[in-house]
Formats: sequence, C-alpha cells, structure tokens
Amino acid sequence: MTQPRRVTAPSDPAAGRVAAALRAPRLCIERISPQVDHGRCPAKATVGQALAIEADIFMDGHDQVAAQVIWHEGAVAQALPMRALGNDRWRVEAVPQGAGRCRFTIEAWLDRWGSFRHGLARKAAAGVPIKLELEEGRALIREAAQQPGPAAGSLAALSRELATLDDSRTLDLFLGEATAALMRAGEPRRFVTRSQPELEVEVERTRAGFAAWYELFPRSCTRDPARHGTFDDVIARLPAIKAMGFDVLYFPPIHPIGASNRKGPNNSLKAGPGDPGSPYAIGSSEGGHTAVHPQLGGIEAFRRLHAAAGEAGIEIALDFAVQFSPDHPWLRDAPHWFAYRPDGSIRFAENPPKKYQDIVNCEFYADSRPDALWQALRDVILHWVDAGVKIFRVDNPHTKPLPFWQWLIEDVRGRHPDVMFLAEAFTRPAMMYRLAKIGFSQSYTYFTWRNTRAEFIEYLTELTQGPPKDFYRPHFFVNTPDINPYFLQTSGRAGFVQRAALAATLSGLWGLYSGFELCEAAPLPGKEEYLDSEKYQIRVRDWNAPGNIVGEITRLNHIRRENPALQSHLGLTFLQCDNDQVLYFAKHVPDRSNYLLVAISLDPHQAQEAYFDVPLAELGLPDDGALEVEELMRGERFTWRGKRQHWRFVPWELPLAIWRVKPA
Amino acid sequence: MTQPRRVTAPSDPAAGRVAAALRAPRLCIERISPQVDHGRCPAKATVGQALAIEADIFMDGHDQVAAQVIWHEGAVAQALPMRALGNDRWRVEAVPQGAGRCRFTIEAWLDRWGSFRHGLARKAAAGVPIKLELEEGRALIREAAQQPGPAAGSLAALSRELATLDDSRTLDLFLGEATAALMRAGEPRRFVTRSQPELEVEVERTRAGFAAWYELFPRSCTRDPARHGTFDDVIARLPAIKAMGFDVLYFPPIHPIGASNRKGPNNSLKAGPGDPGSPYAIGSSEGGHTAVHPQLGGIEAFRRLHAAAGEAGIEIALDFAVQFSPDHPWLRDAPHWFAYRPDGSIRFAENPPKKYQDIVNCEFYADSRPDALWQALRDVILHWVDAGVKIFRVDNPHTKPLPFWQWLIEDVRGRHPDVMFLAEAFTRPAMMYRLAKIGFSQSYTYFTWRNTRAEFIEYLTELTQGPPKDFYRPHFFVNTPDINPYFLQTSGRAGFVQRAALAATLSGLWGLYSGFELCEAAPLPGKEEYLDSEKYQIRVRDWNAPGNIVGEITRLNHIRRENPALQSHLGLTFLQCDNDQVLYFAKHVPDRSNYLLVAISLDPHQAQEAYFDVPLAELGLPDDGALEVEELMRGERFTWRGKRQHWRFVPWELPLAIWRVKPA
Repeated sequence: MTQPRRVTAPSDPAAGRVAAALRAPRLCIERISPQVDHGRCPAKATVGQALAIEADIFMDGHDQVAAQVIWHEGAVAQALPMRALGNDRWRVEAVPQGAGRCRFTIEAWLDRWGSFRHGLARKAAAGVPIKLELEEGRALIREAAQQPGPAAGSLAALSRELATLDDSRTLDLFLGEATAALMRAGEPRRFVTRSQPELEVEVERTRAGFAAWYELFPRSCTRDPARHGTFDDVIARLPAIKAMGFDVLYFPPIHPIGASNRKGPNNSLKAGPGDPGSPYAIGSSEGGHTAVHPQLGGIEAFRRLHAAAGEAGIEIALDFAVQFSPDHPWLRDAPHWFAYRPDGSIRFAENPPKKYQDIVNCEFYADSRPDALWQALRDVILHWVDAGVKIFRVDNPHTKPLPFWQWLIEDVRGRHPDVMFLAEAFTRPAMMYRLAKIGFSQSYTYFTWRNTRAEFIEYLTELTQGPPKDFYRPHFFVNTPDINPYFLQTSGRAGFVQRAALAATLSGLWGLYSGFELCEAAPLPGKEEYLDSEKYQIRVRDWNAPGNIVGEITRLNHIRRENPALQSHLGLTFLQCDNDQVLYFAKHVPDRSNYLLVAISLDPHQAQEAYFDVPLAELGLPDDGALEVEELMRGERFTWRGKRQHWRFVPWELPLAIWRVKPA
Repeated sequence: MTQPRRVTAPSDPAAGRVAAALRAPRLCIERISPQVDHGRCPAKATVGQALAIEADIFMDGHDQVAAQVIWHEGAVAQALPMRALGNDRWRVEAVPQGAGRCRFTIEAWLDRWGSFRHGLARKAAAGVPIKLELEEGRALIREAAQQPGPAAGSLAALSRELATLDDSRTLDLFLGEATAALMRAGEPRRFVTRSQPELEVEVERTRAGFAAWYELFPRSCTRDPARHGTFDDVIARLPAIKAMGFDVLYFPPIHPIGASNRKGPNNSLKAGPGDPGSPYAIGSSEGGHTAVHPQLGGIEAFRRLHAAAGEAGIEIALDFAVQFSPDHPWLRDAPHWFAYRPDGSIRFAENPPKKYQDIVNCEFYADSRPDALWQALRDVILHWVDAGVKIFRVDNPHTKPLPFWQWLIEDVRGRHPDVMFLAEAFTRPAMMYRLAKIGFSQSYTYFTWRNTRAEFIEYLTELTQGPPKDFYRPHFFVNTPDINPYFLQTSGRAGFVQRAALAATLSGLWGLYSGFELCEAAPLPGKEEYLDSEKYQIRVRDWNAPGNIVGEITRLNHIRRENPALQSHLGLTFLQCDNDQVLYFAKHVPDRSNYLLVAISLDPHQAQEAYFDVPLAELGLPDDGALEVEELMRGERFTWRGKRQHWRFVPWELPLAIWRVKPA
C-alpha cells in the first residue's frame, strides 16, 4: 500500500481524538427558536396557542435529513415530526395544554430511505438504468425489517412481497408514500443528533398575552372629593368597565398609607389634614403590605369587590411596591432589614440629590437574615393569592435585585402556575428585557414615547422579530398615573383615539388609566405629569362628559375579542403606504385564517390621505385579485379589486381603519 | 413583630432555594461580543490587531458598576479594565500577540466608591448637607484599608490623613481621581459576577484576514499548448504576479491525474490522447495526494518554485480535494475506504441523475477503520506542511463530514498554528457559516452573485454586522475556474475594473483566477462557465494583451497595502447617495486614523453621476466643515468643503473613486 509518509502510531494521543471525532454529532442543529440566552432562561408561550419551534438542520453532502421535536409537558413526552421550510430551516408547532414549565429537544438524523427514494425518482425520470438501485432498495428494506419495533412485521411482509415483484412494480412501490411511511417508522436511524441543552418554555394562561387593562384609584370612586371612595363604590363602576370591554381591573396599592412625611397635592412636601397621601407610601399603624386601607372598606369590602368582578368576568390586579412608609410595621418589627446612617437615622430612598422622605427601601442583602426578608415579601404575594388575586403589577422591579425576582416568581408560580407578574420598569432596554427573561409575564414598554411611523416600525420590529419575541410580552399602556404623554397634552380627542387604536391593535396587551377615556390631559406645566395627580388627591369625574371616546374604546375591545390576529403583538408586518403620517400594517394568525389590515393616521389635527398596497400575494392572489373587505370600526362591507387602494383619515371623524380581508 | 401570616418553616425546601438565590450573581453580563454559538465555537482574531470585547453589564438600582476582561494568552493572564459606552454597554480591546487559542472571561462588580463619589458630587453641587456622607466615605476608606493587598498601605495612610482634615478638604479628596484610583485598586469588590462559559478566540496570522490571491494552472504557463507548463515556468511568472501586488499564489491540484474516464476539452466524456485531464481527478499509478504530477516537474521543481516565491514575498496555497480518480493508489491499497454497489463495482460520485465517472468519493464512516482514513487524509496535509505549504484551499468541504474538518483543522493547527484553510463551499448559508465556525480561516462567499446596490448592502451588512462578523472571514473572488460570472460576460473591460474594485475594497481578502486581468469572459453558451475551460485543457495567454486591467489591479493592491482600513471587511458603513447605480461606503479603522470613502459605479456601460453626503459628523466636523481629500486611484489631492459633494463615474475612464479623507 502506498502509505502516506507518516501514519499515526497507535500510541499517538491523536488516535483518541479521532475516535471521539468519529462519535461526534454528524448533523448540525442551530439557531433554534424559541430560545432565550441559549437556554439559560425559558421562552414564553400561552396555553392552547400553537408555539412554532424552528431550527436550522443540515448535514454534509446531498443526502436528506429528518427531524423531530421531543416535547415534554408534565410527565408526558411527545415526538412531533418537523417539516422542512427550505434553506435548511425546519419547523413544527407544539400546543401547550396547561400552565407550567415545558421542555423540548430536537432530534435529527440521516434519512436513508428518503435519500434513496429521492435519487431513485430522479434517475427513473431521467431514464437511466436503475437495476442496481432497486437492489439497493431491497437491501435497505431487509435491513429495516430486522430492526425490532412496531413496523418490523409490516417491513418483513413487504420484503417478502418484493421478492415476487418485477422491476416496474418494485419501482412503484419504492416511490410510493406507503413504503416511505413504513420506512420512517421502522428504518434504523443513523447519525441521530440531539440539540443541547434541553430548552424550556414557561407556559401561562391566555390572559398573560391577551388582555385589556383598566386602572383606577378606588378612592376616587366618589362624587364628593370629601368622601373617600370604597371598594363598594368600585363595584358600582364594574358594569361600565365591563361594557367598555376591559377584563383586568388594576389598582395602585390598596394598603394603609403612612402619615409621616405624607405628600400633599401635586407632590407637595406637606400634606394638609384631609389629604389622603400617596398610596405608594405603604404602611401605617393600621398595617403593611398584607392589610387593606381602612378607608377603602377593609378586607371585607375587597372580598365583595373581588367576587363581583369575578362575576362580571373581570380580574383584579394588585400593585406590589416593595417600599415602606416610615410608619410601616416592619421598620419596628424587623429593623435589621433596613439601612441606617452613621448617626443612627434611617436611610431614606434617594436618587441624588433628590430624597424621597415618605419612603424607605429595605436592604435585600442585609447583614442579618436577608432570607427572612425575601420570604416575608414572597409571603405578601401568597397572602393576596389566598385572597384570590392572581395578577401583580410590580412597581419599579429594576431597583430590586434580579435574583430576588427570579426566586420569588419561580417560587410563587411553582405553587400557583396561574399567577402572573407585570414588570413596571421604565429604564434601559437591557434591564427591561432581563426582567422578562427571569420570569415577568408581561412588561411595560417604550410605547408611550413612540410617535412617528419610523419609531413604531423600529420598535415593533425589535419586539416582534428580534430576540425579545421569545420572552417579552409588551403591555402597551396609553397613559399611567405617572405618564401624561406630551402628545396627548395637545392632540385633542383624535389623538386619544389614535393612541388607543395603536395600543389595541399593535399589542395583545393594552391598558389605560382612568380619565383617558375622557381625554383628560391637563399637565403639570412643562412636565409629562398630570395636574392634580390622583397619586396625591381624590379626583371626581363625570364619566359621561361630552367628547369622551368610550364608544371607540368599546369598539376596539370588541374587535380584539373577535379577531385572534389582535390577541398577540406577534404576526405583525409593516406595509408600504405613500404617506408618512399613516402607519399601515397587517396583523394575522400563523395560518392567515384571520387577516387584518390596519391603517392609523398619526396626525390628530389634519386630514390625511394615503395610497397603499394591499398584500394580495400574501393572500395567494394575483395583482388584479379581489378581496372581500369588512371595515370593522364602521361595520361596512365592500370589495377591493387590485393592489393599489386609497383611504382618507379624518381626525374629527375617525382617524383609522381596520379592514378584515379575505379572498373574494 | 407583625409577622406576615405564613413565614416559611426551617424545614421548608424553599429555605434552601432562597439561600441559593442570595448567592446567585447579582449583576448581569449579557450579549458578550465576540462569541460564536454561546461559546461552543471560537471567535476569530488576527495577530497584532485589536479585538474589541463588549458586553451589556448592569445591575439593579442606581449604583455604579465596574468591569474587566480576564484575557488569557498562552500561560499569561491579563486584567483589562472595561469602559462604559453608555446604555449598559461596556468595552475593552485586547491585542493578541501570537497565533493560537486565547480565552477570556468578563468580571463585573458593584463599584461602591464610584457610586459614593457620584452621589457625593451631585449633592455637593446641589448644596445639600453632606456631613453624614463624608462620614460614610471615611468608613468606606477604613474598610478598604483593612483589605490585604498592594493598596492597603496607601489606604491606611489616607485614612490617617483624613482624620486631620476639615470637611472641605475631605470633600476635595473624596471627589479626586487619586482617591478613586486607590479605591479601585484596594476596595473589596462586592457581588463579583463572572461570565460563563469562558469564551475562546482563535488567533491567526495577518494573512488570514488580509491577502490578495492569484490563481493559475501551472500547466498553462507555456507558449505552446503542446508543451505542458512546469513549476519552473511558474517561476518565470512570479515577477509579474508580484508586480501586480498579489501575495498568495494558488494552484488547483498539482497531483498525478487519473487516466480512467479522463475528461476531454469542455468537460467532454472522452479525452483525446494528448488531453491533460482535470487535475481534480486525483491519483494515478504515479501516486496520489502526496505526489506531484510528473509533467509539472515533480517535487524538485515544486521546491524550486516554493523557494523562489518565498523570496518574492509570495506564499503558495495548494488545493485539498478529497476525491479520487479510479486510478488513485488508495483504491487498490485501502479498498475498505470506498463504497461498492450490489454488483461489486465501485460507487462513483453522483448528484442524481448526474454521475461523475472520473471521480470516486471515500467513505468517511466506513465500516472498517475510518479512523485510519481520517488520519491518512490529515497526513496528506502534514506532508505538504513539511514541504513548506501553510495555506490550503479545500475543495467542496460541505460534502465531507463536519466533525472530520473540525478534527483535522484542530489537529493540524495544534501542531502548526500558522497553517490556514480556505473553505470552497458554495451552498446554503447555514453550512457555509458552520464551516467557518468549526475552524476554516477563510470562506468563499456569494460575492460573485451580488450585483445591485441593494444586494451588496444586504449581504455586506449580514457579514459585517450580523453573527458572522465574529467568525467568518469572507474571501471575495472575482472569478474562479468554475465561475465566469454572467455580469462579466457582457460588461466589457469596465465591468472587470468595477468587480476588482468591489472585491478589493469591500473585503480584506480578494482574489482572481488568471485571465481576469485580461478581461477574458468567453462563456460556454448560456452557462456561467468558461469556454475551453482550463480545467480540461492547456490555455496559452498573451499577458500583455491590449485592454488588460493590470494597471488598475496593481493600483488597487497598492492602495490596500497602504491603507489599514482596506485590510478587513469590518469597519464598513454604507452611505447615502442619490444614484442607485453607485455603491458608496466608508471604510475605516476603529480609531478612524485611516478613513476612506469609496464610490464605485455598478454600471459598466453608461457614465453615472451622483450627489452624495460626506459623513462630516463622523469625523468630528460641522456640516460646513472642510476635508483634505486624496483620490488614491488617480493620485489627486484637493479639498472638500461642506457635506454635499458630486462625482462623475465614466466606465471608459475609471468607474470608481477612493478618497482618503481627513479634517483640513
């Protein structure tokens, strides 16, 4: 033998390395989706909704490969065969059945029979001799028949039958789907490669991804600013909230409010004798985070409200704000959980040079028993879960340690998989995304500060196509007690309709803080805050004030319920139109059975017109095809013929359109 | 104490989980760059070139953090302090000193003194009382002074000095950089967090990223097609190749060519008696992959050429094609490395229904001793390394198993870190990228099929800003013996200049196959192949034929050597200009000390004009600023004033411009 000059001696350590390389996975499984930080955090999914699992799967050469997902939910494991999308991309959908943690792995292997069948078909079509190929096919089937398993009997029978067939009948059999199915089941799989690590998916109930939130201060449910509203007054508001189509009712903290350093109206440093104080200054001699503010009617009134809301199909969400009035009982009972200055005084919250003298933070890494503090905070949540609350909006989670939240959420959801947490973090993107990765079900966003078409396209593209798509559920609030957007301060009524429509159509989760439907926008001069903020005083409102947009909000929420395409931020495609003042996009479910086109004018002052292209090709139509169209805001039906269409958006009428389309 | 209702009992397993959470990393280190598949494959770097290491680093709250990279090269570890770029992004540059594998980890921690100093400065500026803050600062320094370490003595002295200072002097000292430096060195670091896994960087010599390749068939170095060229004839060509500025000379396989089923001119199935055959049909009775084709002059002629090229500063690259003529000695000596049909005949290479009857593939997973086959192939490489060859262009690596290449490259580079491999894979993107991830130094690309401005922008953006930037070094060949681009078949001379300029300026690696400089483009009718391809016959050329572009190529290679901005595909920014037929971009080194603007017309037929914006802001200039400009192709110098400039690109003169700019 013509030996290459230098064959490796058996003692060469390289000999071990080549043996290991021969055992290494021959196939590649890459760019698996969903995945978060290479499997360090779970991806998110919701019960009953198909979760697309994709990967690049390939091997050397021209042979065919096959792949499946092994999907674990609870104790049940399923094998889900993947299909090739082209360009080495493979996909299958899994449908989680319940809330909790699922896991999956991808397996891929050399598809010998598929490769053989593919080559055979080409050769037969080209009319080249295939006698040897048929012999090879018989050998493959004989080999498969010897493999123990449920298909072995059928394969053995097939092998016997083949011995009786001529080449032409054999060819038919080899090219047929029945043989392919048998071989898929029974052929020994070569070069089986498994993805690593096993990936996790946190499954949550539907409302984690699709809900309309309404926020109010219960104490303002009154017709007289001198009379503090109660939970029983909130019960009286429920029919109106339900009629508008909201299904989550969220309150700022409902606990006793501290008296020390209590804030007065408009964040003034001194409260008057009748001032109710900020509900974020939690805790007084009447109790802390597990108590109910007596003026709201105490825990019994809360229970009445909770029951009434439940009957109306409205879920209550509470605020979890880890901060303490100086009067909070924990300062007296567990002083080691707080920090002190060199003079022995307690350290107030601050953001230098600002100090917040009605609030004290706890020390999450206190020298003494921080574990007891963490558990006590977790027990606050469990207390309210016992009272029937399953949604917690967490105030400023980014100023508390990430390991704390990860532990707390895992602990609580381990006991109650239907509990959800919304992260109210307005800070830099990395932190906002991280909070979602470690377990928050939903997240506040930068929506309130996105105004131009380019801004919406950039931000929503990041959320729906970038890494966040796998773990970040954006909750689009049009306003909050802390955010009176500059845009709305001057937009007038049309601007409120536009912002509601943007939030309600771009995201499965949207919400408003009461007063929005009345187009309230009086600011603290020059600031993005409300004048006479409800955070510091009781506000009485006329819920039927003229110029309100209750009708439009009701319609939007109704359209959302009727159209699955609007029940997630995903399934979004921005489309071209010739007017920069009009945001135009498609929302659809994966199989396109529900397909909406949405156009919203961003100009609250002038009428805008736009020519725009209808994505006929996406719907399987030629450029001169016809679409049946239903404009859902107005309830009109008509037909669009051809690709190019036109619309006029009139702020003083209705500055948007939502077209549900299907091929005529 | 107001106990929350349900404090966890000590036996609760949750107690262990909270203890673990308290020990979990408090800081986050995310989106580390460079990294490849979360550290499963090494990133790439070159000797002496700064490698930017970046990450998102952050923690909860408003405190400051600090970070460093621990960089391991050989046995030496260095701590490189990172700097904040804003928005939680941090960076530092490492400069590898030699070829081989480096490793790095990122460490980050709470910067207590930095946080204290920052808050103190703000409070002092706001004029609020800071007496307690100063006391807190003294305590921090006392604590640091007790920490053993090189700074302990200085800190103890500082602590003693502080006892003698009034508040005003103390404030100055606390805000000063000297104290900050001392504290950086000596303060105990809290919440130190380390990135995981440790990441690897494969460092290669300069030519891995910056080289100009010239490909030729040695047998065509002759003036008479009846006389087979030899390596000694190639020696005679070296001065011309060097003069054009090429520094790598690459040959298709140089081994004995099989006689069985030898291909004739234009890939005809039957060779005539004088036909030389395809050099890719490797192996004959005269030897296999380690032998030299006798008609080229044998190994002695190769050694003479290698020495002469070395003296000219030109490196020889060989082709590694793992395929076998039916006459290759291994078929006789190691028949178990090959596959057979049911009738006992050898299995030829095929891509159904096509068969390649002059080529046989080996079985990488043969039933018997595949390890010996892998080692024998590796030993082919080592044989040529011994002969002085350090660059291997690998033919069709995507049709051989990936674990084989990963093992082979690691084995060879473990012995000889200066050996490089170029992957000639024209297949789907996932496979092309994978080959680079598992060790190929350089890769063929889709460059040849990118023609419009939009196509260049999309492809180069993917290569320079997507994941490939960390592991994929694109080698832009303007043509190959297999690719006679459609564009060049009709473009005429200007098209050759345009394609050379595109390759030479967009990538650090470019190359051409001989004949390109003579604007050869006669195709097999309707195909992207050359008529009378050199793969099957000897081609005699007149190297001084009129209309050649030797001058332009020489100029381009000269400009590349003089301008570091052109020595990598990275550092690329596409810029706006008002003519779609003009590709306009900036190339620069990280510190912008070498900054080029390049504009290339894509139209080989018509003159094109363009108004374009000069990125004055990038160069620190206002919109009416002035730039000193050197047009490098023509050697002209002038001044540009203002942002808007104009140029005319004339195909029959010079359809491009390369402007080296600096602030006037």
